[in-house]
Amino acid sequence: MRAPMKRDAAAFVCELLEGLARFGAEEGGGVTRLLYSPEWLKAQHYLAEKMEGLGLDVYFDRVGNLIGRMEGTSSRDPVVLTGSHIDTVRFGGRYDGAYGIAASIAAVTYLQETYGQPVKTVEVVSFCEEEGSRFPLTYWGSGNMVGNYDWSNGEAVFDGDGVSLAEAMAAAGFGRPEQPAACRVDIGAFVEIHIEQGPVLEKQRKRIGIVETIVGQRRYAVKVQGASNHAGTTPMSLRRDALAGAAEMILQLEADALLYGELLVATAGRIDCAPNAPNVVPGSVGFTVDVRHADEATLSDFCEMMLSKFKEMAQWRGLELQIVPWLTAKPAPMHAGLSGMAERIAQDLSLPNRRMVSGAGHDAQLFSSLCPTALLFVPSQAGVSHSPDEYTSPEELADGVSVLAALLYELAYEGKRS
Amino acid sequence: MRAPMKRDAAAFVCELLEGLARFGAEEGGGVTRLLYSPEWLKAQHYLAEKMEGLGLDVYFDRVGNLIGRMEGTSSRDPVVLTGSHIDTVRFGGRYDGAYGIAASIAAVTYLQETYGQPVKTVEVVSFCEEEGSRFPLTYWGSGNMVGNYDWSNGEAVFDGDGVSLAEAMAAAGFGRPEQPAACRVDIGAFVEIHIEQGPVLEKQRKRIGIVETIVGQRRYAVKVQGASNHAGTTPMSLRRDALAGAAEMILQLEADALLYGELLVATAGRIDCAPNAPNVVPGSVGFTVDVRHADEATLSDFCEMMLSKFKEMAQWRGLELQIVPWLTAKPAPMHAGLSGMAERIAQDLSLPNRRMVSGAGHDAQLFSSLCPTALLFVPSQAGVSHSPDEYTSPEELADGVSVLAALLYELAYEGKRS
Repeated sequence: MRAPMKRDAAAFVCELLEGLARFGAEEGGGVTRLLYSPEWLKAQHYLAEKMEGLGLDVYFDRVGNLIGRMEGTSSRDPVVLTGSHIDTVRFGGRYDGAYGIAASIAAVTYLQETYGQPVKTVEVVSFCEEEGSRFPLTYWGSGNMVGNYDWSNGEAVFDGDGVSLAEAMAAAGFGRPEQPAACRVDIGAFVEIHIEQGPVLEKQRKRIGIVETIVGQRRYAVKVQGASNHAGTTPMSLRRDALAGAAEMILQLEADALLYGELLVATAGRIDCAPNAPNVVPGSVGFTVDVRHADEATLSDFCEMMLSKFKEMAQWRGLELQIVPWLTAKPAPMHAGLSGMAERIAQDLSLPNRRMVSGAGHDAQLFSSLCPTALLFVPSQAGVSHSPDEYTSPEELADGVSVLAALLYELAYEGKRS
Repeated sequence: MRAPMKRDAAAFVCELLEGLARFGAEEGGGVTRLLYSPEWLKAQHYLAEKMEGLGLDVYFDRVGNLIGRMEGTSSRDPVVLTGSHIDTVRFGGRYDGAYGIAASIAAVTYLQETYGQPVKTVEVVSFCEEEGSRFPLTYWGSGNMVGNYDWSNGEAVFDGDGVSLAEAMAAAGFGRPEQPAACRVDIGAFVEIHIEQGPVLEKQRKRIGIVETIVGQRRYAVKVQGASNHAGTTPMSLRRDALAGAAEMILQLEADALLYGELLVATAGRIDCAPNAPNVVPGSVGFTVDVRHADEATLSDFCEMMLSKFKEMAQWRGLELQIVPWLTAKPAPMHAGLSGMAERIAQDLSLPNRRMVSGAGHDAQLFSSLCPTALLFVPSQAGVSHSPDEYTSPEELADGVSVLAALLYELAYEGKRS
C-alpha cells in the first residue's frame, strides 16, 4: 500500500480538528463538549456532513453514536470498525478523542479514493461518550455498542443539574425505538488511534505507540472518621485527627507505589475535609484512591496490601475507617496479531515505535473481549492532556494516519493489494 | 463574704441560658447567633431587659456592646468589668460566651441584693462579637473597647453575602456618632468566666480552672503547587503531586507537635485540593496551620523549624511553596494578683481547682495589657465546644458564679467586708 502524502493527511486532520474545536470552545482556550449538549450535537452533525460529503453512508444509532460506512464487496463479512469519542472533559483539549475520529475519516477516505471499494465493510465511528464528564458513567457510546449498557439504562442516572441521561438523550433527538440499535454483533475488528496523554513517546522520541494492554483499574472511596475538636484546647495526645490519619495513608500509598516500580500508579486525587476550619481538629476526611496496573494479580496484591495498611493505621490512631470500592476494571489486553501488524507497518514506514501499556482507559478496552482490537498512540507534547494545552504536531498526527490507513488496508482490502 | 446559695445560682444561670438559647436556635439543636443578625439583636435586648429588671443601669455602646452598670459609691474609681460575648459560631452550643454573661449577671445582682451598693462601679458586659463567625475578624466587641479597633473600621470588611460590617452594624441600629463611644479608658480590672472548651478539668475532676496565660497563636496559609496530570499515564517518578507533598508536611507537623509535649498544639484544620478529581494527580493544595503555645520563644522556635522543614520537603519534591502568616497573637499572661485571689477563693469554697493555660482565645486576652485581668474556667463535658453538645452541669455553673461573686466582692466592695 502506498502511504498517504504526509502533507495532505496533516492538512486534512488539522482542518477537521480545527472545525470540531469550534463546538464547545471556551473563552480563553479549551473545549467543553458534554454528552447530548447543544455543542456536542452540533459537532456530531458537523462530522456527519463531512463524512457524507466524502462519500460515506452516514447514520446515527439509537444512543447517538455517529457512523460513516464504506460498504465492502463482501458485505456479509464482519465489519472493520475504527474511530474514537466526540465528547470532552470540561475545559479539555482539541485532540483527546477528536484526533481518533479525524484520523479514521482521513484514513478511510484516503483508502476509498486510492483503492476504491474494500472487500470488507469499514465503518468510522464517533462514539457519543467516553469521558464520564456529564453523567456519572463512562463509555456510554462503546458500552452500548458492545452490549455493556442498554440504551434504556439512562432513567436513573443524573447530571449535576438533575437532568436524567434518558431526558438528555431524548432532548438531543435520540433514544427512539425506531432508530438503529446501538448494540452490534457484526464487528470483526476494532482499531482506535488516540493521543498518548502521557510523556513516554515524547521523552523517548517515538512516533507511534502500540498498546499491548490497557491497565486494570481500582477506585476506592476512603472515609476516615475521627473527632472534631477545638484546635486550641485539645492536647495532641487526646486527638483523633482525621486529616492527620488521611495524610499518613496518602503518604504510605505514594511510597508503596514508588516501590512497586514504573508500571504501577496510585493516586489520591480528591480530598474533602469536615468541618474544614483552620481552628478545628478535622473530624472527618474522605479521599479517593485510584490504582492502575496492567497485571490483574499485581493490582489485586497491591490493593490488598494497601487496604490492610490503611486499616492498621486507622486502628492505631483510634479512627474509624470505611472503604468503598466503586470502580473495578480488569486489564484489557489488545490483540497480539493486530499489534504485530501495526508494529510491522510502523517499521516499514520508518516510524520509531514502541510497545506500551495504556494507563488511561479507552473505548478500545470494551471491544477487546468482543473482537480483535488494536490501540495506537501518537505523542502528547509534555504528556499534557485533559487541558487546553494538549498538543500533537501535524507531522505526528499524519504519521498516525499513515499507520492506521495501512492497518485498515490490510484488514479490509485483503486480496486487493496493490 | 457569704457565697450565694448554690441552688439559687444554678437556677438563675440555667434560666438565663435557656432564655438566650431561644435566639438563633437551630432545628435539631445548636445555636447560631451571628454578629448584628436579627437573632443576635433579640438576644441583646432580652439581656438588656433582664438586667434592667434586676436594677442595673443599662446601655449599648456604639458597636453594640451591652453594658449593665452598678454604680459604686466611689464613682471616680476605675470600673470593675466582668462579662463575655453574646455571639456564637454556626451551630454552636448554649454555654460558650453566654455562660460568662449569665454568671456575671448572677454574681453582680447577688452582690447588690446582699451587700447593696459597691465602693467601685461594677459593670457587666455582653460583648457584641468574639468568634469571627460572620465577618473575617474576631474580638470586634472587646477590641473596640480596648482600642484595638475603631468602630469606623467596618467599611471594608464583608460577610459571605457581601454585606459590609459597617452596613450590618447600621442595620442593627449601631454605629451612630451620638451613641456612647465603645473605647474605654476607665477600666480598672476585667474578670471573665468561661467554659473550658477542653477536657482537662473534667478529666482531673477539678471544678475551677484559673488561667495563667492565654496561649500565643500563629496561623499560616500554606499553598503547595505541583503539576496536575493524568492519574493513569503519569509514572509515579515523574509526578509533582501537591497532595502527597501536603500530606508529608501535615504528618510532620503532627509528629513534631507531639514531640514538643503537652503544651504545644499544632493543627492543619483546613485543606483544599485542585482539581480535586479522582483520576487527576493533584496540581495544587492549600492547607492551614494553627500553632499555639503559652511561651512566645517556644512558639517562635517551633514555627521556624516547621517552616524550614516544609521548605525542604517542597524542594525535594520539586513543588513550589507559598506560606502566608495571617494571624499572630502573642501569649497573654493573666494578672498574678487576681489569679492568686481566685485560687484562694476557690480553696476557701473547697472547690478543687488548678492553674492552667487557655489554648483558646478569649476577650480577656485583649484586656490583659490594659488592666489586671483574670480568666476563670468551669468544666466542659467531654471537652466538647462549638457544638450543640456543649454541656456543663448546673452545679458546676453555680460553682463558677460563687468564685466570680467572691472575686468581684473583693475588687469592688473592699472596705465593706462583712
